Amino acid sequence: MGSGLGPYRYQLISDPGGLTQFGAFIEELAPGSASGFRHWHETEDEMVLILSGEAVLVEDSETTLRPGDAACWPAGNPVGHRLENRSDAPVRYLVIGTRNVSDVIHYSDHDLITHKEGKARRYLHRDGTPYPQGGKK
Amino acid sequence: MGSGLGPYRYQLISDPGGLTQFGAFIEELAPGSASGFRHWHETEDEMVLILSGEAVLVEDSETTLRPGDAACWPAGNPVGHRLENRSDAPVRYLVIGTRNVSDVIHYSDHDLITHKEGKARRYLHRDGTPYPQGGKK
Repeated sequence: MGSGLGPYRYQLISDPGGLTQFGAFIEELAPGSASGFRHWHETEDEMVLILSGEAVLVEDSETTLRPGDAACWPAGNPVGHRLENRSDAPVRYLVIGTRNVSDVIHYSDHDLITHKEGKARRYLHRDGTPYPQGGKK
Repeated sequence: MGSGLGPYRYQLISDPGGLTQFGAFIEELAPGSASGFRHWHETEDEMVLILSGEAVLVEDSETTLRPGDAACWPAGNPVGHRLENRSDAPVRYLVIGTRNVSDVIHYSDHDLITHKEGKARRYLHRDGTPYPQGGKK
């Protein structure tokens, strides 16, 4: 990721096991890191389950998540979300998301909408005008 | 479940959160219990992640799974599987499975094939002849 989100690492689980219908990976955020930019998916369900440590779920409000806590984002529900580690220890969680051929991802804090079609990506402004090819943010 | 599989309990995660594309729940097996009958799915990917305790994964061979271990079964891979708790402590794990409208479930140790179509279920012998309506095993 990069982009000022801080250090993180992840372990893919579903792909090495041959799954294609959903993706599952374990992500670990160092103190001060964030999972990504706030976003939501038009066509893909998404879920996290905290395994260890503590994360702050940032939506329009904030919620502290602890081991065993889960959060779900049904496809099409326009609630931008991300996790932040504001603690002084790593936080580990499982992320699960459907893998559809087509999806549209809305970034709540950026002028960016990403269209996914197979392996292709198109990056648009919110008004629908495309970013220059190769550009992203 | 019942049917001699022993005590277990589970906590649905994905449904309370409004997800429909995959199911996720945490299952806890008491010592001596099994997750179900060995089975595999024609159209749905399935995965488990051990959270605490120890389980024996029974396929054609046996594998001991410990916290952090995951196992994946891609749709259509004809490997019947189930988890057994042969330890003296509970085992907890996350189960994730795609939710398709149509699926066919093969039971490796039983003369049973279940056809799922929406909310309807048809129970067939392996030779394709149906069980009497209302009957299951």
